[in-house]
Amino acid sequence: MTEPADTTPSGRRRWPDGYDPPRTRRELVDSALHLFEKDGFDRTTLQQIVSRANLTKGAFYHHFESKEDLLSQIQNEYLDTQIEAANAIVATQTDTVEQLRELIRLSLSGVATYRAHVAIFYQERRHLTGDRLAAVTEKRNELEAVFRGSVERGIGAGTFRADMSGRVVSFGILGMCAWAFQWFNPDGTLTIDEVAEQFCALVLDGLLA
Amino acid sequence: MTEPADTTPSGRRRWPDGYDPPRTRRELVDSALHLFEKDGFDRTTLQQIVSRANLTKGAFYHHFESKEDLLSQIQNEYLDTQIEAANAIVATQTDTVEQLRELIRLSLSGVATYRAHVAIFYQERRHLTGDRLAAVTEKRNELEAVFRGSVERGIGAGTFRADMSGRVVSFGILGMCAWAFQWFNPDGTLTIDEVAEQFCALVLDGLLA
Repeated sequence: MTEPADTTPSGRRRWPDGYDPPRTRRELVDSALHLFEKDGFDRTTLQQIVSRANLTKGAFYHHFESKEDLLSQIQNEYLDTQIEAANAIVATQTDTVEQLRELIRLSLSGVATYRAHVAIFYQERRHLTGDRLAAVTEKRNELEAVFRGSVERGIGAGTFRADMSGRVVSFGILGMCAWAFQWFNPDGTLTIDEVAEQFCALVLDGLLA
Repeated sequence: MTEPADTTPSGRRRWPDGYDPPRTRRELVDSALHLFEKDGFDRTTLQQIVSRANLTKGAFYHHFESKEDLLSQIQNEYLDTQIEAANAIVATQTDTVEQLRELIRLSLSGVATYRAHVAIFYQERRHLTGDRLAAVTEKRNELEAVFRGSVERGIGAGTFRADMSGRVVSFGILGMCAWAFQWFNPDGTLTIDEVAEQFCALVLDGLLA
Protein backbone atom coordinates (compact mmCIF):
# COMPACT_ATOMS: atom_id res chain seq x y z
CA MET A 1 0.00 0.00 0.00
CA THR A 2 1.22 3.46 -0.83
CA GLU A 3 -0.04 6.99 -0.37
CA PRO A 4 -3.39 7.92 -1.97
CA ALA A 5 -3.21 9.38 -5.46
CA ASP A 6 -5.59 10.70 -8.08
CA THR A 7 -6.92 8.37 -10.71
CA THR A 8 -7.81 9.35 -14.25
CA PRO A 9 -11.17 8.25 -15.73
CA SER A 10 -9.32 5.48 -17.58
CA GLY A 11 -8.32 4.06 -14.21
CA ARG A 12 -4.67 4.93 -14.60
CA ARG A 13 -3.29 6.08 -11.35
CA ARG A 14 -1.35 9.34 -11.18
CA TRP A 15 1.46 8.54 -8.79
CA PRO A 16 2.86 11.66 -7.10
CA ASP A 17 6.06 11.07 -9.03
CA GLY A 18 4.27 10.56 -12.39
CA TYR A 19 2.37 7.84 -14.28
CA ASP A 20 4.14 4.56 -13.70
CA PRO A 21 2.66 1.43 -15.35
CA PRO A 22 5.14 -1.07 -13.86
CA ARG A 23 4.40 0.31 -10.41
CA THR A 24 0.64 0.06 -10.98
CA ARG A 25 1.06 -3.53 -12.12
CA ARG A 26 3.24 -4.30 -9.08
CA GLU A 27 0.62 -2.86 -6.70
CA LEU A 28 -2.08 -5.04 -8.28
CA VAL A 29 0.10 -8.16 -8.10
CA ASP A 30 1.01 -7.46 -4.47
CA SER A 31 -2.64 -6.93 -3.59
CA ALA A 32 -3.63 -10.19 -5.31
CA LEU A 33 -0.77 -12.10 -3.67
CA HIS A 34 -1.99 -11.02 -0.27
CA LEU A 35 -5.66 -11.77 -0.96
CA PHE A 36 -5.20 -15.04 -2.86
CA GLU A 37 -2.97 -16.39 -0.12
CA LYS A 38 -5.32 -15.29 2.67
CA ASP A 39 -8.74 -16.07 1.19
CA GLY A 40 -8.05 -18.15 -1.91
CA PHE A 41 -8.57 -17.36 -5.59
CA ASP A 42 -12.30 -18.14 -5.62
CA ARG A 43 -13.20 -15.98 -2.64
CA THR A 44 -11.19 -12.98 -3.81
CA THR A 45 -13.08 -10.54 -6.06
CA LEU A 46 -11.58 -8.24 -8.65
CA GLN A 47 -13.05 -5.33 -6.69
CA GLN A 48 -11.15 -6.42 -3.56
CA ILE A 49 -7.89 -6.61 -5.52
CA VAL A 50 -8.22 -3.10 -6.96
CA SER A 51 -9.59 -1.60 -3.73
CA ARG A 52 -6.68 -2.91 -1.71
CA ALA A 53 -4.25 -1.40 -4.26
CA ASN A 54 -6.22 1.87 -4.21
CA LEU A 55 -6.73 1.51 -7.96
CA THR A 56 -9.68 1.00 -10.30
CA LYS A 57 -10.90 -1.83 -12.51
CA GLY A 58 -9.79 0.28 -15.49
CA ALA A 59 -6.21 0.13 -14.22
CA PHE A 60 -6.59 -3.60 -13.72
CA TYR A 61 -7.76 -4.24 -17.28
CA HIS A 62 -4.88 -2.15 -18.58
CA HIS A 63 -2.52 -4.84 -17.24
CA PHE A 64 -4.54 -8.07 -17.02
CA GLU A 65 -7.28 -9.73 -19.07
CA SER A 66 -8.96 -11.31 -16.07
CA LYS A 67 -8.44 -12.57 -12.53
CA GLU A 68 -7.23 -15.85 -14.04
CA ASP A 69 -4.75 -13.96 -16.21
CA LEU A 70 -3.39 -12.24 -13.09
CA LEU A 71 -3.09 -15.64 -11.35
CA SER A 72 -1.18 -17.03 -14.31
CA GLN A 73 1.15 -14.01 -14.41
CA ILE A 74 1.89 -14.54 -10.70
CA GLN A 75 2.80 -18.18 -11.37
CA ASN A 76 4.90 -17.26 -14.41
CA GLU A 77 6.73 -14.51 -12.54
CA TYR A 78 7.93 -17.00 -9.92
CA LEU A 79 8.75 -19.82 -12.33
CA ASP A 80 10.60 -17.56 -14.81
CA THR A 81 12.84 -16.20 -12.05
CA GLN A 82 13.63 -19.69 -10.76
CA ILE A 83 14.23 -21.21 -14.20
CA GLU A 84 16.58 -18.41 -15.22
CA ALA A 85 18.59 -18.69 -12.00
CA ALA A 86 18.69 -22.51 -12.17
CA ASN A 87 19.93 -22.45 -15.76
CA ALA A 88 22.60 -19.92 -14.80
CA ILE A 89 23.82 -22.24 -12.03
CA VAL A 90 24.03 -25.23 -14.36
CA ALA A 91 25.80 -23.14 -17.02
CA THR A 92 28.48 -21.77 -14.70
CA GLN A 93 29.03 -24.35 -11.95
CA THR A 94 30.65 -27.46 -13.41
CA ASP A 95 31.25 -29.30 -10.12
CA THR A 96 28.17 -31.53 -9.76
CA VAL A 97 28.12 -31.46 -5.97
CA GLU A 98 28.38 -27.67 -5.87
CA GLN A 99 25.77 -27.44 -8.62
CA LEU A 100 23.27 -29.39 -6.55
CA ARG A 101 24.14 -27.33 -3.46
CA GLU A 102 23.45 -24.12 -5.36
CA LEU A 103 20.18 -25.48 -6.76
CA ILE A 104 19.05 -26.37 -3.23
CA ARG A 105 20.02 -22.89 -2.00
CA LEU A 106 18.15 -21.32 -4.94
CA SER A 107 15.04 -23.36 -4.29
CA LEU A 108 14.96 -22.47 -0.59
CA SER A 109 15.75 -18.81 -1.12
CA GLY A 110 12.91 -18.80 -3.69
CA VAL A 111 10.56 -20.11 -1.03
CA ALA A 112 11.76 -17.50 1.45
CA THR A 113 11.60 -14.58 -1.00
CA TYR A 114 8.42 -15.60 -2.83
CA ARG A 115 6.48 -17.25 -0.01
CA ALA A 116 3.07 -16.05 -1.22
CA HIS A 117 3.88 -16.96 -4.84
CA VAL A 118 4.80 -20.48 -3.75
CA ALA A 119 1.75 -20.94 -1.53
CA ILE A 120 -0.52 -19.72 -4.33
CA PHE A 121 1.28 -21.89 -6.86
CA TYR A 122 0.36 -25.02 -4.94
CA GLN A 123 -3.02 -24.03 -3.58
CA GLU A 124 -4.54 -22.26 -6.60
CA ARG A 125 -2.90 -23.80 -9.65
CA ARG A 126 -5.97 -25.84 -10.47
CA HIS A 127 -7.88 -22.63 -11.17
CA LEU A 128 -5.78 -22.12 -14.28
CA THR A 129 -7.25 -23.57 -17.46
CA GLY A 130 -6.37 -24.13 -21.11
CA ASP A 131 -3.24 -22.46 -22.45
CA ARG A 132 -2.48 -20.74 -19.15
CA LEU A 133 -2.43 -24.06 -17.31
CA ALA A 134 -0.37 -25.66 -20.08
CA ALA A 135 2.21 -22.85 -19.99
CA VAL A 136 2.62 -22.99 -16.20
CA THR A 137 2.81 -26.80 -16.19
CA GLU A 138 5.47 -26.68 -18.89
CA LYS A 139 7.55 -24.23 -16.87
CA ARG A 140 7.21 -26.31 -13.73
CA ASN A 141 8.40 -29.34 -15.71
CA GLU A 142 11.29 -27.28 -17.09
CA LEU A 143 12.42 -26.30 -13.58
CA GLU A 144 12.15 -29.92 -12.40
CA ALA A 145 14.17 -31.02 -15.43
CA VAL A 146 17.08 -28.75 -14.43
CA PHE A 147 17.24 -30.43 -11.00
CA ARG A 148 16.86 -33.89 -12.50
CA GLY A 149 19.53 -33.20 -15.12
CA SER A 150 21.97 -32.14 -12.43
CA VAL A 151 21.33 -35.28 -10.35
CA GLU A 152 21.52 -37.55 -13.40
CA ARG A 153 24.80 -36.04 -14.61
CA GLY A 154 26.20 -36.62 -11.12
CA ILE A 155 25.07 -40.25 -11.23
CA GLY A 156 26.48 -40.65 -14.75
CA ALA A 157 29.84 -39.20 -13.69
CA GLY A 158 30.06 -41.51 -10.69
CA THR A 159 29.89 -38.61 -8.22
CA PHE A 160 26.46 -39.72 -7.01
CA ARG A 161 25.40 -43.26 -6.23
CA ALA A 162 24.53 -45.40 -9.22
CA ASP A 163 21.65 -47.15 -7.42
CA MET A 164 19.64 -43.94 -7.17
CA SER A 165 16.84 -42.87 -9.50
CA GLY A 166 17.45 -39.34 -10.76
CA ARG A 167 13.71 -38.80 -10.96
CA VAL A 168 12.97 -39.90 -7.39
CA VAL A 169 15.98 -38.08 -5.92
CA SER A 170 15.22 -34.83 -7.72
CA PHE A 171 11.54 -34.91 -6.74
CA GLY A 172 12.59 -35.73 -3.20
CA ILE A 173 14.95 -32.75 -3.03
CA LEU A 174 12.49 -30.41 -4.72
CA GLY A 175 9.75 -31.51 -2.33
CA MET A 176 11.95 -31.05 0.71
CA CYS A 177 12.69 -27.48 -0.43
CA ALA A 178 9.21 -26.56 -1.66
CA TRP A 179 7.70 -27.83 1.56
CA ALA A 180 9.55 -25.14 3.48
CA PHE A 181 6.74 -22.72 2.57
CA GLN A 182 4.64 -24.65 5.08
CA TRP A 183 6.94 -24.24 8.04
CA PHE A 184 9.87 -21.87 7.45
CA ASN A 185 9.61 -18.79 9.63
CA PRO A 186 11.77 -15.84 8.45
CA ASP A 187 11.69 -14.54 12.04
CA GLY A 188 12.72 -17.90 13.51
CA THR A 189 16.10 -18.95 14.88
CA LEU A 190 17.45 -20.40 11.61
CA THR A 191 18.10 -18.40 8.44
CA ILE A 192 17.11 -19.88 5.09
CA ASP A 193 20.85 -20.30 4.33
CA GLU A 194 21.24 -22.42 7.45
CA VAL A 195 18.27 -24.55 6.40
CA ALA A 196 19.92 -24.93 2.97
CA GLU A 197 23.18 -26.08 4.58
CA GLN A 198 21.31 -28.69 6.65
CA PHE A 199 19.42 -29.97 3.60
CA CYS A 200 22.64 -30.17 1.56
CA ALA A 201 24.35 -32.10 4.35
CA LEU A 202 21.34 -34.40 4.65
CA VAL A 203 20.96 -35.35 1.01
CA LEU A 204 24.67 -35.38 0.14
CA ASP A 205 26.24 -37.04 3.19
CA GLY A 206 23.20 -38.56 4.91
CA LEU A 207 22.00 -38.50 8.46
CA LEU A 208 24.02 -41.41 9.82
CA ALA A 209 26.82 -40.44 12.19
CA MET B 1 -21.00 -44.98 -6.88
CA THR B 2 -23.21 -48.00 -6.29
CA GLU B 3 -26.49 -49.32 -7.61
CA PRO B 4 -29.59 -47.11 -7.23
CA ALA B 5 -31.55 -47.60 -4.05
CA ASP B 6 -34.72 -46.26 -2.46
CA THR B 7 -34.42 -43.42 -0.03
CA THR B 8 -36.73 -42.84 2.93
CA PRO B 9 -38.25 -39.40 3.53
CA SER B 10 -35.59 -38.79 6.19
CA GLY B 11 -32.94 -39.17 3.52
CA ARG B 12 -31.67 -42.48 4.82
CA ARG B 13 -30.83 -44.74 1.96
CA ARG B 14 -32.16 -48.26 1.91
CA TRP B 15 -29.25 -50.28 0.61
CA PRO B 16 -30.34 -53.56 -1.01
CA ASP B 17 -28.65 -55.37 1.85
CA GLY B 18 -30.27 -53.19 4.54
CA TYR B 19 -29.84 -49.76 6.15
CA ASP B 20 -26.12 -49.15 6.67
CA PRO B 21 -25.08 -45.83 8.21
CA PRO B 22 -21.30 -46.39 7.93
CA ARG B 23 -21.72 -47.19 4.26
CA THR B 24 -23.83 -44.06 3.70
CA ARG B 25 -21.17 -41.99 5.44
CA ARG B 26 -18.44 -43.63 3.35
CA GLU B 27 -20.30 -42.85 0.10
CA LEU B 28 -20.62 -39.19 1.12
CA VAL B 29 -16.94 -38.94 2.07
CA ASP B 30 -15.86 -40.60 -1.17
CA SER B 31 -18.07 -38.25 -3.19
CA ALA B 32 -16.65 -35.20 -1.39
CA LEU B 33 -13.06 -36.46 -1.77
CA HIS B 34 -13.56 -36.68 -5.51
CA LEU B 35 -15.27 -33.30 -5.85
CA PHE B 36 -13.06 -31.34 -3.42
CA GLU B 37 -9.93 -32.60 -5.14
CA LYS B 38 -11.27 -31.90 -8.63
CA ASP B 39 -13.06 -28.56 -8.16
CA GLY B 40 -12.01 -27.34 -4.71
CA PHE B 41 -14.02 -26.91 -1.54
CA ASP B 42 -15.54 -23.56 -2.52
CA ARG B 43 -16.81 -24.65 -5.90
CA THR B 44 -18.33 -27.89 -4.63
CA THR B 45 -21.93 -27.64 -3.44
CA LEU B 46 -23.65 -29.83 -0.89
CA GLN B 47 -26.13 -30.81 -3.62
CA GLN B 48 -23.28 -32.05 -5.83
CA ILE B 49 -21.88 -34.14 -2.99
CA VAL B 50 -25.20 -35.86 -2.26
CA SER B 51 -26.15 -36.22 -5.94
CA ARG B 52 -22.87 -37.93 -6.78
CA ALA B 53 -23.43 -40.36 -3.88
CA ASN B 54 -27.06 -40.90 -4.99
CA LEU B 55 -28.19 -39.74 -1.56
CA THR B 56 -30.17 -36.82 -0.15
CA LYS B 57 -29.35 -33.80 1.98
CA GLY B 58 -31.25 -35.54 4.79
CA ALA B 59 -28.73 -38.38 4.68
CA PHE B 60 -25.92 -35.82 4.66
CA TYR B 61 -27.17 -34.02 7.77
CA HIS B 62 -27.55 -37.33 9.54
CA HIS B 63 -23.75 -37.66 9.38
CA PHE B 64 -22.34 -34.12 9.07
CA GLU B 65 -23.23 -30.69 10.43
CA SER B 66 -22.08 -28.85 7.32
CA LYS B 67 -19.72 -28.99 4.33
CA GLU B 68 -16.96 -27.65 6.61
CA ASP B 69 -17.69 -30.41 9.12
CA LEU B 70 -17.29 -32.97 6.33
CA LEU B 71 -13.98 -31.35 5.30
CA SER B 72 -12.71 -31.51 8.86
CA GLN B 73 -13.76 -35.17 9.21
CA ILE B 74 -11.81 -35.94 6.02
CA GLN B 75 -8.70 -34.27 7.47
CA ASN B 76 -9.14 -35.99 10.83
CA GLU B 77 -9.65 -39.40 9.21
CA TYR B 78 -6.27 -39.16 7.49
CA LEU B 79 -4.37 -37.67 10.41
CA ASP B 80 -5.81 -40.12 12.98
CA THR B 81 -4.75 -43.10 10.85
CA GLN B 82 -1.23 -41.72 10.40
CA ILE B 83 -0.77 -40.72 14.05
CA GLU B 84 -1.91 -44.12 15.31
CA ALA B 85 0.43 -45.96 12.93
CA ALA B 86 3.37 -43.63 13.67
CA ASN B 87 2.94 -44.08 17.41
CA ALA B 88 2.79 -47.86 16.94
CA ILE B 89 6.11 -47.75 15.05
CA VAL B 90 7.82 -45.69 17.75
CA ALA B 91 6.40 -47.97 20.48
CA THR B 92 7.57 -51.23 18.92
CA GLN B 93 10.70 -50.44 16.87
CA THR B 94 13.57 -49.52 19.18
CA ASP B 95 16.32 -49.32 16.55
CA THR B 96 16.40 -45.62 15.60
CA VAL B 97 17.45 -46.19 12.00
CA GLU B 98 14.73 -48.77 11.43
CA GLN B 99 12.24 -46.51 13.21
CA LEU B 100 12.94 -43.68 10.77
CA ARG B 101 12.79 -46.08 7.82
CA GLU B 102 9.37 -47.28 8.93
CA LEU B 103 8.13 -43.72 9.46
CA ILE B 104 9.22 -42.82 5.92
CA ARG B 105 7.48 -45.91 4.56
CA LEU B 106 4.34 -45.03 6.51
CA SER B 107 4.34 -41.47 5.27
CA LEU B 108 4.73 -42.51 1.63
CA SER B 109 2.20 -45.33 1.84
CA GLY B 110 -0.17 -42.78 3.39
CA VAL B 111 0.30 -40.54 0.38
CA ALA B 112 -0.28 -43.46 -1.99
CA THR B 113 -3.36 -44.78 -0.17
CA TYR B 114 -4.93 -41.45 0.74
CA ARG B 115 -3.92 -39.33 -2.25
CA ALA B 116 -7.12 -37.30 -2.32
CA HIS B 117 -7.06 -36.82 1.47
CA VAL B 118 -3.51 -35.48 1.25
CA ALA B 119 -4.22 -33.18 -1.70
CA ILE B 120 -7.28 -31.79 0.06
CA PHE B 121 -5.36 -31.46 3.31
CA TYR B 122 -2.90 -29.07 1.69
CA GLN B 123 -5.17 -27.30 -0.76
CA GLU B 124 -8.28 -26.80 1.37
CA ARG B 125 -7.11 -26.66 4.96
CA ARG B 126 -7.50 -22.90 5.10
CA HIS B 127 -11.26 -23.34 4.71
CA LEU B 128 -11.41 -24.81 8.20
CA THR B 129 -12.10 -22.31 10.95
CA GLY B 130 -12.27 -22.10 14.73
CA ASP B 131 -12.21 -25.33 16.72
CA ARG B 132 -12.10 -27.48 13.59
CA LEU B 133 -8.96 -25.73 12.35
CA ALA B 134 -7.41 -25.89 15.82
CA ALA B 135 -8.07 -29.64 16.10
CA VAL B 136 -6.58 -30.42 12.68
CA THR B 137 -3.55 -28.19 13.29
CA GLU B 138 -2.96 -29.90 16.62
CA LYS B 139 -3.06 -33.33 14.98
CA ARG B 140 -0.68 -32.23 12.23
CA ASN B 141 1.72 -30.97 14.91
CA GLU B 142 1.35 -34.26 16.77
CA LEU B 143 2.29 -36.24 13.66
CA GLU B 144 5.28 -33.97 13.00
CA ALA B 145 6.35 -34.38 16.63
CA VAL B 146 6.56 -38.17 16.24
CA PHE B 147 8.98 -37.76 13.30
CA ARG B 148 10.96 -35.09 15.10
CA GLY B 149 11.15 -37.16 18.28
CA SER B 150 12.54 -40.10 16.32
CA VAL B 151 15.22 -37.94 14.64
CA GLU B 152 16.15 -36.23 17.91
CA ARG B 153 16.47 -39.51 19.81
CA GLY B 154 18.76 -40.73 17.04
CA ILE B 155 20.88 -37.58 17.35
CA GLY B 156 20.91 -37.90 21.15
CA ALA B 157 22.01 -41.53 20.95
CA GLY B 158 24.84 -40.70 18.52
CA THR B 159 23.26 -42.74 15.72
CA PHE B 160 22.54 -39.61 13.72
CA ARG B 161 24.89 -36.68 13.17
CA ALA B 162 25.14 -34.23 16.03
CA ASP B 163 25.39 -31.20 13.73
CA MET B 164 21.86 -31.71 12.42
CA SER B 165 18.76 -29.88 13.60
CA GLY B 166 16.02 -32.38 14.47
CA ARG B 167 13.43 -29.82 13.45
CA VAL B 168 14.92 -29.09 10.01
CA VAL B 169 15.67 -32.74 9.26
CA SER B 170 12.21 -33.93 10.24
CA PHE B 171 10.48 -31.21 8.23
CA GLY B 172 12.78 -32.04 5.31
CA ILE B 173 11.87 -35.72 5.44
CA LEU B 174 8.18 -35.04 5.94
CA GLY B 175 8.19 -32.60 3.03
CA MET B 176 9.99 -35.02 0.76
CA CYS B 177 7.35 -37.66 1.52
CA ALA B 178 4.28 -35.40 1.51
CA TRP B 179 5.37 -33.89 -1.81
CA ALA B 180 4.94 -37.29 -3.44
CA PHE B 181 1.21 -36.53 -3.78
CA GLN B 182 2.26 -34.06 -6.50
CA TRP B 183 4.13 -36.53 -8.67
CA PHE B 184 3.80 -40.16 -7.56
CA ASN B 185 1.95 -42.21 -10.15
CA PRO B 186 0.56 -45.54 -8.83
CA ASP B 187 0.60 -46.83 -12.42
CA GLY B 188 4.21 -45.73 -13.00
CA THR B 189 7.33 -47.87 -13.10
CA LEU B 190 8.24 -47.51 -9.42
CA THR B 191 6.12 -48.78 -6.52
CA ILE B 192 5.68 -46.62 -3.46
CA ASP B 193 7.88 -49.10 -1.54
CA GLU B 194 10.68 -48.54 -4.05
CA VAL B 195 10.31 -44.76 -3.63
CA ALA B 196 10.50 -45.31 0.14
CA GLU B 197 13.73 -47.32 -0.22
CA GLN B 198 15.28 -44.55 -2.35
CA PHE B 199 14.27 -41.87 0.15
CA CYS B 200 15.63 -43.91 3.06
CA ALA B 201 18.92 -44.42 1.23
CA LEU B 202 19.08 -40.71 0.39
CA VAL B 203 18.48 -39.31 3.86
CA LEU B 204 20.35 -42.00 5.79
CA ASP B 205 23.43 -42.62 3.63
CA GLY B 206 23.40 -39.58 1.33
CA LEU B 207 23.74 -39.22 -2.39
CA LEU B 208 27.54 -39.17 -2.63
CA ALA B 209 29.08 -42.26 -4.15
